[in-house]
Formats: sequence, C-alpha cells, structure tokens
Amino acid sequence: MANITQSMLDAIEQELQRQVARLDQPRTKSFHEMLTYHMGWTGEGAGPLATGKRIRPLITLLCTLSSFNDRENKEEVIAINWLHAKSAAAAVELIHNFSLVHDDIQDNSTLRRGRETAWVKWGAPMAINVGDALFVIANQAVLDLIDHYPADMVVKTASILNDCCLDLTRGQFLDMSYEERNDLSIEDYWPMIGGKTSALLSACTHIGSLLGYANEEKQEAYRLFGYHLGLAFQVQDDILGIWGDEALIGKSAASDLVEGKNSLPVLFALGKNGGFANRWKEGPITVEDVGPVSAMLEDEGAKEYAEKMSEAETQKALGYLKQADPQGEAGEELLRLANMLLTRKQ
Amino acid sequence: MANITQSMLDAIEQELQRQVARLDQPRTKSFHEMLTYHMGWTGEGAGPLATGKRIRPLITLLCTLSSFNDRENKEEVIAINWLHAKSAAAAVELIHNFSLVHDDIQDNSTLRRGRETAWVKWGAPMAINVGDALFVIANQAVLDLIDHYPADMVVKTASILNDCCLDLTRGQFLDMSYEERNDLSIEDYWPMIGGKTSALLSACTHIGSLLGYANEEKQEAYRLFGYHLGLAFQVQDDILGIWGDEALIGKSAASDLVEGKNSLPVLFALGKNGGFANRWKEGPITVEDVGPVSAMLEDEGAKEYAEKMSEAETQKALGYLKQADPQGEAGEELLRLANMLLTRKQ
Repeated sequence: MANITQSMLDAIEQELQRQVARLDQPRTKSFHEMLTYHMGWTGEGAGPLATGKRIRPLITLLCTLSSFNDRENKEEVIAINWLHAKSAAAAVELIHNFSLVHDDIQDNSTLRRGRETAWVKWGAPMAINVGDALFVIANQAVLDLIDHYPADMVVKTASILNDCCLDLTRGQFLDMSYEERNDLSIEDYWPMIGGKTSALLSACTHIGSLLGYANEEKQEAYRLFGYHLGLAFQVQDDILGIWGDEALIGKSAASDLVEGKNSLPVLFALGKNGGFANRWKEGPITVEDVGPVSAMLEDEGAKEYAEKMSEAETQKALGYLKQADPQGEAGEELLRLANMLLTRKQ
Repeated sequence: MANITQSMLDAIEQELQRQVARLDQPRTKSFHEMLTYHMGWTGEGAGPLATGKRIRPLITLLCTLSSFNDRENKEEVIAINWLHAKSAAAAVELIHNFSLVHDDIQDNSTLRRGRETAWVKWGAPMAINVGDALFVIANQAVLDLIDHYPADMVVKTASILNDCCLDLTRGQFLDMSYEERNDLSIEDYWPMIGGKTSALLSACTHIGSLLGYANEEKQEAYRLFGYHLGLAFQVQDDILGIWGDEALIGKSAASDLVEGKNSLPVLFALGKNGGFANRWKEGPITVEDVGPVSAMLEDEGAKEYAEKMSEAETQKALGYLKQADPQGEAGEELLRLANMLLTRKQ
C-alpha cells in the first residue's frame, strides 16, 4: 500500500471519529456508543475487520488529489490539499453506514462483518435512530467543508450527496418491492442496483473530483468511472454470491440462492421462464439444493451472461478512468484500487 | 384567518407536493404514493384532517415576512419576498414528517391523525425507507434555496436544520432509553423535550428570520421565541394528555397515563418518590385506574407544577417575540398563532 493511501485511511478514521463524537455528551454516552460500535471502533470484535475497508472515502480523497495534481495553475489553489476534503470523505462513509444499519433491520440480518447488528443488540427502534443519526452527521460533515471551500462548492457537494441518497432510497424500495413480485426479469435489475450500489460510488468520484477543482468535463468522467465501477462491482458480487468458493463449497448457507436474493443471474434466468424460474417460484432454495440449482442456472446461461456484463461494465469503468486521466501517485493508487476491486475472487 | 396566512398555507402545500414529486417516476409510483399517503394527500381519509395544520412551515414563512418588513433598506433586497423561502418551509415540514413516520414504528403506534400509520399499511421495512426518503427530500428542499439566496445563506440554513435533526435523534434516544429506567426525575424531562419538540420549532423561527434578512440579534430573539414556544406547547400537551377532556372523560384510553408516557407531571411525581411513584413502578395504568391515579398526581402537586412551568415558558416565549418585534400583518399573525397554540384546550 502506498504511503498516500495509508495517510488517507488514517485521516479518514480520525475524521469519522471526530464527526461521530457530536453525540459524545453526558446524557447521550450510550447513544454515542451504539454508533461507535457499528462503526467498528468499540465493543466485542472491534478492529480493522469490523470497520470495513473504507473504500468509498478512500476513493473520494484519491479522486480529489489526482484531480488537483491535474491542474496547471496549482499556485492559484495552493491552499487546497486533500485534507481539506476529509469531511466530505467522512460523509460518504457515514451515508454508507446509515444505509447498512437500516438495511440490516429491513433484511432481518443478524450479522454484519461477523458481529451482531445494531438492531439485534439494541432493538429495531433504537437501531432506526442510530441510522438516522449517522445520516444527520453525514449531512453535517459535508457542511464542514465551508472551512476550506467557497459556499457554492459546499452547496454543490451537498446536492450531489443528497441526490445520491434519494437514489439509495429508490433502489431500496425496488429491492423490497421485488420480494412480492413474480414477474421479474433482467430489466428490473439495473435500476435497483444503480440506486443501491452505483449511486454512492459515483457520488464519491464526482464529489472527490469536484473538491480537487477538476473541470466539468473531468468531473463527468470521474462520475461515470464511479458509476460503472459500482455496476461492475455489484455484478461480480452477484456472481461470487452464487459461484464463489464460500457460496459453493465453504458454507452453502452463505449462497445468495438460499437468501433468495434477486441478483443478476437469478433475474436473467427468471426472464427465461425455464427450469430455474419454475424451481425459484416453488419456494426457498435449501442448502442441499444449492449445488443442483446453481448448475441449472449455469446451464441456462446465467453465469456466462453475468460474466459478460461484469466485463463490459469493467471496461466502461476503466475507459472513463482513462478519460479522467488521474495524475500522480494518487492516480496510480486509484487505478490499482479499481483493478483490485474488479478482479477480486472473494 | 388573514389573507397572508391562507396564501402561505397554499404555497406550502404546493411546494411540499412539488418536492415529494421527486419520487413520482415510472418505477417508483407506489413508493411516491406511500409518501403522499403519509402527507395526507392520497388514500383513505385524505384531506385537511390528514395533512395536519402545517404549523411549522407557516411559522417559518411568517418569521421571514415579519423580519423582512422590519428592514429599513427594503430596496436593497427588493427582489426578496417570502415565496423565496418556501422550499425551506417545506423542508421543516418534511423533517417533522420524517420523524413522525419513524416515531410511529418505534412507538408501535397504529394510528396517526385518525389513519393507519405507514408501517401498518406497508410494513416496518418499507416505512423506514419512507421516513428516510422524506428526510432526504427535506435536505434537497433546503438546497433549492440557492435559486433565490446567496450560497453562504443556504449553507447556514442547512446547518441550522441539520443541527436540529441531531437534536431530534438525541431527544428520541432519551425518550426510548427512559422506558428501561426506574430512577427518572424532572431533571430528565427538559433535555428530552428540548430535542423532541423545541429543536424543530426553534429551527423554524431561526431559519425564517434568517431568510427574512433579520440581523443576528433579531435572529437570536426569533430563535429563542421558537424554543420556548416549543417547551410551553409540549408542557401544555402533557397537561392535556392527563387532565384534558378527552383524557379524563371522553375515552380514558387516550390518557398519557395508560400509554405510560414520561410526561412532565409524571416525571415530577416520580422525583417525589411518593404514592404515585410506587403505583407507576408497579406496572401499567389501566383505563379504570386513570381517574384515581390522575387525582393522586394532582394531590402530589404535579398539575400545579406543570401549569406553573407552562405559564413560565409561555411568558418567556412571548417576551422573546416582543424582542424580535415582528412587523406588519405577518407580525400580527405570528402573535395570533402563538397565542392560539399557547391557550388551546385540546
């Protein structure tokens, strides 16, 4: 890992803790602890595995620095450095975590990064409030940019982030509404995943480049890089969720098939109305069924289709990244990170 | 009702519908309908009773206009009129409604303004998302001010609103955490109610006067007017919840005592550790107990204390309003509205 990446990760963690500390007051100590537990800093199992990788804020800051390096007139904005964008980086991570806390309630998920979820520990009513607080703090963090940026850029950043949040709620609505539907096809996949996964990643790359003073054209390239990175990442996640080692061999209960997830391979095959579609409509896939049902999916072309889509989105993402032309060590790190995300096996 | 008040209420309703229409898109029609149902515009029982009174946005716009009237140099800001602040007024109402939707899930409330709550109609997972969307749209609405105000004023407004939202989550946390505690006293009341009720009302009057270009000193007077108006209103609500006609005579099930609410009279008497405190700790108050238990509360001085507090907060609120010195027809309406809220009997 390059020095710059480690410096950024340290700054991100520090800024996140500073933002969340808004609740660290006499009467709300235990409320504050609920947030620090979810963020991975306190309680049983606290540590690097519990915090997650902070990919989103890291991408944000790398986009800021690699855009800033791009400017010819660096002197003009000499007072700007990537640290000035750290509260926006914290904001995207807080948004991500707000959505995780509410998702876990909505999906009835008991574990998150190997630890009990907030609603399991404190009940759904408290967990709803924990998610709400993370969301509010994210909005406050964005406004902290005013210490280093002109007000119109702060408004623009807040606007990008809130538009993304509305997309998150749209994606979440579609995901939940699909549970009751019997007529799904591949057409229903992209709007859902565009909201649930790509919206936030494209907000990260867009905001990052904006705060690095990239011009409009470059901002658009960064934004589209993030958008397609999100789609490629999600499709790959869907493939691994059915044919990854853990899903197939390790513990089949981890298979997306058992969880009934409306992933890309599943929606592709549902649209085909063949053997898989009939089996899916019959009821939940048991752990014993995982082997034969995933083979059925593969036979009907779902795996091949998903791999083709993942490859196509990956190429789009890398194409836009090339167009954005990120500069310096941060640019190299951004490319390395994108390649790592797009070629992971688990 | 004065003409200006009716004009404002019309503008508020129109602006709210315009803001919520962000979700009125092909794939999210039924998501949009969940929001319009909660807002009181569609579905069974839709209409004025279902929308609520829109007190908060009305107060916001009255503060804007009554501040604007106060300026000597009106020519300087001639392009400003109260309509320019309408998206901020919509924002405070959307924040209020976001908190209602989540409160109803948290409190397990099945009815709101005489209609089934969102979670009863669509389940808690969908209702959490409805609340989240209302919150996002509130934030987007604030940023719409950029069409009429300088960016630094937009950032300031968003900042006031988000600080208030964090107070809302704090108040909600305290309220929920009190359910498990046996050592409550009057000391625990004000921080809870400061967050749950006063924070938003003080944000309304603060934001309203800011957008009416009031100076800092006047803004502070408006803010404190809203804050104490909120406290007075809530204490009065607590008194009516135990000794109001509906609570005592009409249908005792509506009594706050049956709901186990930690209201001011209850916390006062718990701090006394007398007969009421013993009865309260024994378990839920039944409908049959409402008469004797409320009499016990009155004997222990809880009603007198609450009335004294309500009167004290009312005087503070009216004192700050006088200091704010709201001008013109809007100023008169503001005073009329405050008096109406502070002298209501139900």
